[in-house]
Amino acid sequence: MEKLYVVKIGGNIIDDAEKLKRFLNIFASIQAPKILVHGGGKLATGLAADLGIQQQLIEGRRITDAETLKVVTMVYAGYINKTIVAQLQAFGCNANGFSGADGNLLLAHKRQHATIDYGFVGDVDAVNEKYLKTLLSKNVTPVICPITHDGKGQLLNTNADTIAQEIAKALSIDYDVQLIYSFEKRGVLLNADDESTVIKSINPTYYQHLKSEGIIYAGMLPKLDNAFAALQSGVGKVIIGRAEQLQQLIDNTEGTTIVNE
Amino acid sequence: MEKLYVVKIGGNIIDDAEKLKRFLNIFASIQAPKILVHGGGKLATGLAADLGIQQQLIEGRRITDAETLKVVTMVYAGYINKTIVAQLQAFGCNANGFSGADGNLLLAHKRQHATIDYGFVGDVDAVNEKYLKTLLSKNVTPVICPITHDGKGQLLNTNADTIAQEIAKALSIDYDVQLIYSFEKRGVLLNADDESTVIKSINPTYYQHLKSEGIIYAGMLPKLDNAFAALQSGVGKVIIGRAEQLQQLIDNTEGTTIVNE
Repeated sequence: MEKLYVVKIGGNIIDDAEKLKRFLNIFASIQAPKILVHGGGKLATGLAADLGIQQQLIEGRRITDAETLKVVTMVYAGYINKTIVAQLQAFGCNANGFSGADGNLLLAHKRQHATIDYGFVGDVDAVNEKYLKTLLSKNVTPVICPITHDGKGQLLNTNADTIAQEIAKALSIDYDVQLIYSFEKRGVLLNADDESTVIKSINPTYYQHLKSEGIIYAGMLPKLDNAFAALQSGVGKVIIGRAEQLQQLIDNTEGTTIVNE
Repeated sequence: MEKLYVVKIGGNIIDDAEKLKRFLNIFASIQAPKILVHGGGKLATGLAADLGIQQQLIEGRRITDAETLKVVTMVYAGYINKTIVAQLQAFGCNANGFSGADGNLLLAHKRQHATIDYGFVGDVDAVNEKYLKTLLSKNVTPVICPITHDGKGQLLNTNADTIAQEIAKALSIDYDVQLIYSFEKRGVLLNADDESTVIKSINPTYYQHLKSEGIIYAGMLPKLDNAFAALQSGVGKVIIGRAEQLQQLIDNTEGTTIVNE
């Protein structure tokens, strides 16, 4: 099967224009079908603060109220998405930006929770993989922002890691999907404060050990749970590492590879 | 040739959520290939004011500085575009939003002017009609916001009327294009204050007469110049009228039709 790269970039690189540009230059040079999923960054938080929109927290969880949804739609689907698309076009990559509403790419439902009303937060129900395949076959590179819709006219704020995972899973029937979570560290670290302690490879047994020893810090747990779930669903490979080292992550000379056995 | 409807909606309807919803319901029901081009509305001006971004005017012309470009990209490509797309999806229309950067749909250059620096304002050089045709053939309805790019990574603020015209012209080789400019009046009026004085049809000779008599007011002149230019370039029909009467405009029972002879 043909390789497909699904790459997720997080907020820290989006907040740094120069870093983002270098990353996009490398991403554009990938000579294979590829999809970019981007997160939000601090711009939305900053804009909300400038507009006097209070960040709501219930039981320690962030709530997306109507005003916050408006802000994240503007920032994620508007400014960040189009800035990335225009730069990729300049690097010769035929990028096309999408929210989940566009072409019904990501259908979601408003999160239901026994005690917390998260507001306009969506959990993904379905990926329109047929449309993604059509786009990829036309040499289009989808750039996807973390806004989905419920099919009834409501936009929803959705976790970008989950979107990357759902897309990777949906396309693993037709492609050998390489799912890359790029972030600010060189990979999963044995010692969170020491960048030289990158774990080269993690399988389920080793993951249990790392968790039971308390070696893996809180923020990494959902990422790794996602990674194993993706592999279980047919994704070829999951790699976690530093965004600036995207080429090395692809070449398998940097980062942490998550494997099923 | 198959009919293609290119419909432009202006700011006044975008600013009114209920009116917009009714309009989108009618638009979604058009049983033919169709493209929606939307303008900006007052939301961008309001957001700029809330953020303390001064509107710059040079020789009476609005200037799009870097901060204003950021605001219009957020509002046009983000909030307005995705709100429209999600609502059309709810009405069963497979809408997909685009800026001109997406899929290199609209390539533009920064406006050059002898005395005025308009800032990040773009004039359209090329329409990617091949991509639009691919999308239309897949039953996708493009929803296009007035942001273009220069192919070198720069987004540009661009007039929505012109975008609608350029798209209509580019697709007139393959479709019998019906270009509809919908706005707040019933059509071109003989008496600007009397909605009952809609001019049913305007040809070039009559247009010269209306201009020389000073009957057509300033805001209508570029719209009509655009309309005649579109017809000269092969567009099948241009209709100007009230957004709420979109179905009647299509049925030719309302609005002003611009004809070539």
